[in-house]
Amino acid sequence: MSADDFRRHAHALADFIADYHERIVREAPVLSAVAPGEVMGQLPSHAPESGESWDDILGDVGDRILPALTHWQSPNFFGYFPANASYPAMLAEFLCAGLGVQGMLWQTSPACTELEQRVLDWLAHAIGLPEAFTFRPEASGPASGGSGGTSGGSRGGGTSGQSSGGGGVIQGTASEATLVAMVSARARARGQLGDDARLIAYTSEQAHSSVMKAAMIAGIGRDNLRLIPTDSALAMDPDALRSRIEADLRSGLRPFFLCATLGTTSTGAFDPVDALGSIAQEHAMWHHIDAAWAGSAAICPEHRGWMCGVERADSFCFNPHKWLLTNFDCSAYWTRDRAALLDALSITPEYLRNQASDAGAVVDYRDWQIPLGRRFRAIKLWFVMRHYGLEGLRAHIRRHIALAEQFERWVRADDRFEIAQPRSLSLVTFRLRADDDANRRLLNALNDTGKLFLTHTVVPTIASPQTPRFVLRLAIGSTHTAHEHVERAWECIRAETDRIQR
Amino acid sequence: MSADDFRRHAHALADFIADYHERIVREAPVLSAVAPGEVMGQLPSHAPESGESWDDILGDVGDRILPALTHWQSPNFFGYFPANASYPAMLAEFLCAGLGVQGMLWQTSPACTELEQRVLDWLAHAIGLPEAFTFRPEASGPASGGSGGTSGGSRGGGTSGQSSGGGGVIQGTASEATLVAMVSARARARGQLGDDARLIAYTSEQAHSSVMKAAMIAGIGRDNLRLIPTDSALAMDPDALRSRIEADLRSGLRPFFLCATLGTTSTGAFDPVDALGSIAQEHAMWHHIDAAWAGSAAICPEHRGWMCGVERADSFCFNPHKWLLTNFDCSAYWTRDRAALLDALSITPEYLRNQASDAGAVVDYRDWQIPLGRRFRAIKLWFVMRHYGLEGLRAHIRRHIALAEQFERWVRADDRFEIAQPRSLSLVTFRLRADDDANRRLLNALNDTGKLFLTHTVVPTIASPQTPRFVLRLAIGSTHTAHEHVERAWECIRAETDRIQR
Repeated sequence: MSADDFRRHAHALADFIADYHERIVREAPVLSAVAPGEVMGQLPSHAPESGESWDDILGDVGDRILPALTHWQSPNFFGYFPANASYPAMLAEFLCAGLGVQGMLWQTSPACTELEQRVLDWLAHAIGLPEAFTFRPEASGPASGGSGGTSGGSRGGGTSGQSSGGGGVIQGTASEATLVAMVSARARARGQLGDDARLIAYTSEQAHSSVMKAAMIAGIGRDNLRLIPTDSALAMDPDALRSRIEADLRSGLRPFFLCATLGTTSTGAFDPVDALGSIAQEHAMWHHIDAAWAGSAAICPEHRGWMCGVERADSFCFNPHKWLLTNFDCSAYWTRDRAALLDALSITPEYLRNQASDAGAVVDYRDWQIPLGRRFRAIKLWFVMRHYGLEGLRAHIRRHIALAEQFERWVRADDRFEIAQPRSLSLVTFRLRADDDANRRLLNALNDTGKLFLTHTVVPTIASPQTPRFVLRLAIGSTHTAHEHVERAWECIRAETDRIQR
Repeated sequence: MSADDFRRHAHALADFIADYHERIVREAPVLSAVAPGEVMGQLPSHAPESGESWDDILGDVGDRILPALTHWQSPNFFGYFPANASYPAMLAEFLCAGLGVQGMLWQTSPACTELEQRVLDWLAHAIGLPEAFTFRPEASGPASGGSGGTSGGSRGGGTSGQSSGGGGVIQGTASEATLVAMVSARARARGQLGDDARLIAYTSEQAHSSVMKAAMIAGIGRDNLRLIPTDSALAMDPDALRSRIEADLRSGLRPFFLCATLGTTSTGAFDPVDALGSIAQEHAMWHHIDAAWAGSAAICPEHRGWMCGVERADSFCFNPHKWLLTNFDCSAYWTRDRAALLDALSITPEYLRNQASDAGAVVDYRDWQIPLGRRFRAIKLWFVMRHYGLEGLRAHIRRHIALAEQFERWVRADDRFEIAQPRSLSLVTFRLRADDDANRRLLNALNDTGKLFLTHTVVPTIASPQTPRFVLRLAIGSTHTAHEHVERAWECIRAETDRIQR
């Protein structure tokens, strides 16, 4: 493919993508109706020997791929937590692919590393993370906005070296961030407690499954991760944590890692990180905060109260790819203790040595993550933060939260429904005042309409604090979601409820 | 940004990317001359409050980012192993971002999962991997090429279930693949040996540092990874492996994992996987093969001899993102034992349950990898394999190997130089017949010209089998690299040598 062919195909593809977005906003189906095996059955069993025409390839995208997608970018996607995209972020991904640089070391593309350092500092400031999580002390007041070039704001000095202080990095996912935090914690604990201590990690019963997955991968083991009970709001109970730690200590075990959650996946519950931080500090445990979804909201000062106590955490993570207009994958991870991170992940074979790294003058992000290689993902965050500005990002978050408030009011006004747990930001959990089976049938009926996509969870509710119940979740976070989509969702929920209860 | 703005900006960006590639082919500098901190110093210390214009943003890409890149896609990039890109793969990345789907579960986009299953099967066949590594038994002979739609080739049946047999998956990097293999191995070993056995892993002294990193992350520990000595060709010595295993067994330790390398990073050495496979089988160890770089060459039947014995491996990995015209990240990983993989990585919280998964009728790739979420990376491989066809991909590999052969002849013909280790595919290792310091000075002088980029290693050589020496590596693998670039590289090497030895 020549450069001119590429220009032509890229222009057509841009139109294809724009058409796609205009169509999924206009038309309904979110879930595909394909059966298992149907897509594979339409594809040849072997790769072609000779190259095929671009028209045939792009034609198959329209004919075979699009009909078998779950349209995550549909405004009617309310499942899980949405993974939002935006046009500026898509352009950034295209540029990232076009430049094709690989940022494992500072030397392998200085801009790839330094832009990432800078935008992670930007983002830390924007959500109110303390200075200790950034690469350099505050040099001046807020920038005056405007240019991204030399004219705007103060200039940071040189980079910090690799080995001490804090800083941020883009991980692929919060799962990787949790794993990185856990192995950092282990490196620090082994340094203090030696190799023979049996290390115990703690998180809540409502924590994301990735904490358990990290414990499995890291070899901490399922049995050494304690799932601490939660209170009626499904937030980790500090007293229960304290009791469990004390019991473990009496058994000769060594607490080393606490993962608190700000905004759980099931219901958006917030662990009390201030109280938990005190306990972690008391026992010299690494305190990681997983704010994968909710962290984006902290860009609004009024949605940041639950960050109180974050200054005592050792690491913090949230996913701009969930709710900050940045395409997956982009999980922002900060730590105050780079030394532990390097202890856990750094090895320098001869073939990666270079003058800049040897001089200790630069950050080499390969040591901050599980993989060695890395894409130039900072471009996404840079484009998004500059295109929308912090004001634009705040407006986006506030708009979604207002839509969720509206939906919550509709649910509360209909006697057939109950709110399962208090609305959390843009997540509403609700259910029919009926048995679990009726709720499950409602969910399936809704998703079968194709008009919207919801997912569920099973948790204790306000009305049933002792017995977990099947609960529907409406998570607002898709970029295109507007009032009309939430309104239609509610109409659809009422209509299907009528049908089911007939 | 409206859809129409997006169309306009995307068209301009496509031209920007095409211009960039035309420029880096024409102009020389590969390495940037920026100093540490220089890029950061040009960027404001805080994000802008208000959104900025697209022209300003793209202007800064040209002014601040491009000058501070290491141009991985330059035809004069001969360092590490190149991470090749191609126009079809860039378009695929753009489409991937544009669709914005997330393929953690089959349900979250059936096409994302099933296209990946199918193209990994395509790729397995293309490099000669046995059927046991694919999702389904051979249904017919090779497809007739041509259409990617229903007309070409036989149709595979339905998908296999999750829990048994083999299959492939796209990992981000070979590092992650090695980690997944290691934790799969541990899950199988723990099932057989119980929780108390002290597990020992084996790889060669020349294995990639990611094997050690995986051992650190997985909690196997540095001390429990044996680095087995190599022979004079820097391939793992099976006798040394056998002796070490026997010594470990005598000490009550339990061998569980062997990572062999096909094409080491330093010199492209090939471990004898046939002999090693016998040893692994004898001791019921998981046998992983890391062919990260060399695996792409196996698409040519004449460059596949070193695959002999692969049929006894438990897992195999290579990186199309290194040398098969597919943009980073795309690391292909196959296993014959999905059950161990699921034992190691699967957890199903309520909020991820769905009918298709519960029925066991589909593959959920979240259980095949470290992260939960995943991008639609299969599009890249699909576009690349269809656009070039297997013939086109083979021609690409053969062209690079022929260039390396030419370079090798030039080196051999100049008495001032020696070949360090035999050329391996498109990798030539060479050095001045002089001390290490002279070679280091030559490398720095070459890279300082900006005309090309080489990296080094320190290994035993043909001339110095006992004492490791500083060696230059010329790795051909960039998509744009043609005869003229290799010729100019050789001229530059001779000229700088003249200057240094003057």
